[in-house]
Amino acid sequence: MTIEISAHFTFELDGPTDILLQYEAADIPEQSVLWTDSRIDKSDYFARVAAQDEIGTRIWLRKEGHCEVDYKARIAIHRLTADLSALPAMQQHELPGETVQYLFDSRYCPAERFHSFVQEEFGTIEGGAKIVAMRDWVADHMSYEPGSSHSNTTALDSFVERRGICRDYAHVIVTMARAAGIPARYVSVYAPDVAPPDFHAIAEVFLADPDGSGRGTWHMVDGTFMADPEHTVKIGVGRDAADVSFLTSFGACDFREKTVRTEIVSD
Amino acid sequence: MTIEISAHFTFELDGPTDILLQYEAADIPEQSVLWTDSRIDKSDYFARVAAQDEIGTRIWLRKEGHCEVDYKARIAIHRLTADLSALPAMQQHELPGETVQYLFDSRYCPAERFHSFVQEEFGTIEGGAKIVAMRDWVADHMSYEPGSSHSNTTALDSFVERRGICRDYAHVIVTMARAAGIPARYVSVYAPDVAPPDFHAIAEVFLADPDGSGRGTWHMVDGTFMADPEHTVKIGVGRDAADVSFLTSFGACDFREKTVRTEIVSD
Amino acid sequence: MTIEISAHFTFELDGPTDILLQYEAADIPEQSVLWTDSRIDKSDYFARVAAQDEIGTRIWLRKEGHCEVDYKARIAIHRLTADLSALPAMQQHELPGETVQYLFDSRYCPAERFHSFVQEEFGTIEGGAKIVAMRDWVADHMSYEPGSSHSNTTALDSFVERRGICRDYAHVIVTMARAAGIPARYVSVYAPDVAPPDFHAIAEVFLADPDGSGRGTWHMVDGTFMADPEHTVKIGVGRDAADVSFLTSFGACDFREKTVRTEIVSD
Amino acid sequence: MTIEISAHFTFELDGPTDILLQYEAADIPEQSVLWTDSRIDKSDYFARVAAQDEIGTRIWLRKEGHCEVDYKARIAIHRLTADLSALPAMQQHELPGETVQYLFDSRYCPAERFHSFVQEEFGTIEGGAKIVAMRDWVADHMSYEPGSSHSNTTALDSFVERRGICRDYAHVIVTMARAAGIPARYVSVYAPDVAPPDFHAIAEVFLADPDGSGRGTWHMVDGTFMADPEHTVKIGVGRDAADVSFLTSFGACDFREKTVRTEIVSD
Repeated sequence: MTIEISAHFTFELDGPTDILLQYEAADIPEQSVLWTDSRIDKSDYFARVAAQDEIGTRIWLRKEGHCEVDYKARIAIHRLTADLSALPAMQQHELPGETVQYLFDSRYCPAERFHSFVQEEFGTIEGGAKIVAMRDWVADHMSYEPGSSHSNTTALDSFVERRGICRDYAHVIVTMARAAGIPARYVSVYAPDVAPPDFHAIAEVFLADPDGSGRGTWHMVDGTFMADPEHTVKIGVGRDAADVSFLTSFGACDFREKTVRTEIVSD
Repeated sequence: MTIEISAHFTFELDGPTDILLQYEAADIPEQSVLWTDSRIDKSDYFARVAAQDEIGTRIWLRKEGHCEVDYKARIAIHRLTADLSALPAMQQHELPGETVQYLFDSRYCPAERFHSFVQEEFGTIEGGAKIVAMRDWVADHMSYEPGSSHSNTTALDSFVERRGICRDYAHVIVTMARAAGIPARYVSVYAPDVAPPDFHAIAEVFLADPDGSGRGTWHMVDGTFMADPEHTVKIGVGRDAADVSFLTSFGACDFREKTVRTEIVSD
Repeated sequence: MTIEISAHFTFELDGPTDILLQYEAADIPEQSVLWTDSRIDKSDYFARVAAQDEIGTRIWLRKEGHCEVDYKARIAIHRLTADLSALPAMQQHELPGETVQYLFDSRYCPAERFHSFVQEEFGTIEGGAKIVAMRDWVADHMSYEPGSSHSNTTALDSFVERRGICRDYAHVIVTMARAAGIPARYVSVYAPDVAPPDFHAIAEVFLADPDGSGRGTWHMVDGTFMADPEHTVKIGVGRDAADVSFLTSFGACDFREKTVRTEIVSD
Repeated sequence: MTIEISAHFTFELDGPTDILLQYEAADIPEQSVLWTDSRIDKSDYFARVAAQDEIGTRIWLRKEGHCEVDYKARIAIHRLTADLSALPAMQQHELPGETVQYLFDSRYCPAERFHSFVQEEFGTIEGGAKIVAMRDWVADHMSYEPGSSHSNTTALDSFVERRGICRDYAHVIVTMARAAGIPARYVSVYAPDVAPPDFHAIAEVFLADPDGSGRGTWHMVDGTFMADPEHTVKIGVGRDAADVSFLTSFGACDFREKTVRTEIVSD
């Protein structure tokens, strides 16, 4: 599966400002960057640093005035996908150290508070089937309403108000999974069926491999059903939306325009 | 400086339960574990995994019934301490990748919301002096009131209500530092002057080294003024209190008793 | 039905302090105060003012030092009770002016946020049957856990965490009723089956009278099922718990002890 | 002082929907309605009910389809204004019963949580001077930013983020006043200097009359400084913004346009 991406956005900075960007497809085993053209206006300072869990990179800039980012890439996806509902549960004590942080509460995912609900609603289902039930709960009970959430909206807000956008759907799934003791992280992605075309966000959960090895793998889950794992390009991961913004500005930044395009070019 | 620690706690588990513990002094360059005796009742399963930022370890157990943890250790501290107020500011774009997560909002530290306050209150001060001003603000405006906070209390709550315990003091400092673009993390520690004796929590901030190298170092900050960096033993670090509980139980756990002792045994 | 009440509580005031008390059975058509003996230590100032909706009275004191309140009363209850599930819906536009405030959000009852949930869960049921369904939802999904809530806990918190005490059960029912456009208020009461004996809180909802007159009546609802309307003595009403505390102090107040007894003395 | 008002707004209702309106100048001693012309499209049902504290009226409608409200009025204001800073403090125990509800927390005004801040910041100032200090604090520390707040924004949010619109300025003042034991309510008004022209909101506080009578009066306070009490026309009052919306719909309502004009026509 080959995917072609283009993203273009502009912003204005009053004075010299530090900017952190994360918008490029990650070059990781499950997806290969075949070709890339990433252009950013000349800046005083430019550096790439590894992003969370070594998935993708973050770009540090120091710039002033009008800024323009133009990105094009072609990505081959060779992600192994599984039937989630058939995956066995992983016991917490078998979890590798690097997944432990994804069991804990984060800015938008106050999982501790959902223990009772998750136990009551999903307590009799185990492993991947539990995740499928959570994903379907979100799809059934939430409505997709652009403009209904904002930068302070947590999974608790979305759960009560039962509406949101991809960010909020992902937060609710991440929160429920963690409340059930399953590591869950937030993933920023490109996906071709996202409507209207934009950056997209989904959840990923860590489930046991079916071979009885005691090892586990991260699996994508999307309560909006807009991102098919076979066509989805990962940009970066984090505890929740606080960690993987495509643009973070340390100073006044006037965001102007954004165009995102993601297309399947071959199967 | 040599510190002697003892910690003892017990809890009851109704059925077989996964438990995550993090209570041991970290063995890291700034502090050496001279001698340690860590005893946990025999369990079905026991594993150590690396904790956040490779500071300390977490212990996975699977146990049932009465559980007892008994820990004794002697630690030599050779931490270099600096006059915070003299440390220069580090520019965001120079920050190494692994510190970037500590700029972002976390469960108890909604830093984004404090931009205006931090700009108004501390906007004219830079670098370490800004951190000192934040620490002193917290010491001046908050009162130490055991029982005034609970597991849902965020830095925003503590900032408004102006009271809390070590956890809350650390959260407010971490939040303000991040709102000023300075990486800040939460540190679980042993410290001899903590009254009453207990596990303690402080903040750490990442500031530029004074040698102009463009590199930086983590520095301890304690708004309660109970932990002197020269006597403080690190257990672990995280984004905030959500990440470094000494005991996390994945199932019903009835916590019984806890005794913590930290003493200076030589200078 | 005759009910005998006794309440006794003490508190200490460092300096002269204004105190607002509301602990006496209201003398209203649905319940007659047969006999009462309400003793408060001599104070600098004492006044009674009408409480909300003219139900009961509030007492203003100005006192200092040790304070003791001793209250005994005998109340005859002749409240007409109805089968809630048979009561028709009242249309909003028929609501009398004094009930309108009970449609709106209050401190602990952010009803606006529950529109979607209430529509989804109870949208097909009307009138009193809808209230019965809400009461049963609360009884089925929440667990009664003393100590699980505190002074900042809202109906939203209780709804998510699915636990609380009488105050929280009442808040959730009030919130859901308002979200469905049914006026709902919070009632502070004495009731004989409350265990352990204490002040109790329930909800009241305004439903249409079954005679087709277009008029309505307030009806008690208790998700804890501890207060039978035929045995329940009203103290006061409000928008939520913020309005009907039995003791509000405008200055430091050290609360000491409280004993509440409510008994059926004749049927 | 004579003020001329015109307000015009339209909305669409999918099906028959109950609507509550409150947009007309209140006819009360401090302001006389000289002339009024209030037109609402014919509806299935129309009723006026008294609004909170008998200030103004609320209108109940039941309508469907396109709706248009057209309102014109001329109001003579003969409000007595006082130099707030010279008004003495009123002791809580002297407060009349109907003001007591304005001491308590409401949906957007969690006053209890501000005790420490208010004591620390304004503890040495009394009476009207304390209110003036609160109003000036708000004017100095908050910035007026349309779009920065939304329907869930409380005074706590505005206090931390230090920005908002008239609604938020009023909420912060109301909250601080209550936290200091001074009754405070929220007032919906027309005022000629509001820019851009719109409905406006301010606070009102209950302070002692300077004649030593032990009686008190409500006084307007506006942290945005856009409403001069001599030119301000009251529509209605409430505990906070939850109580005095100009339009509340009990069902889907698509709000279309709004024009508000307020002019001084004679002095």
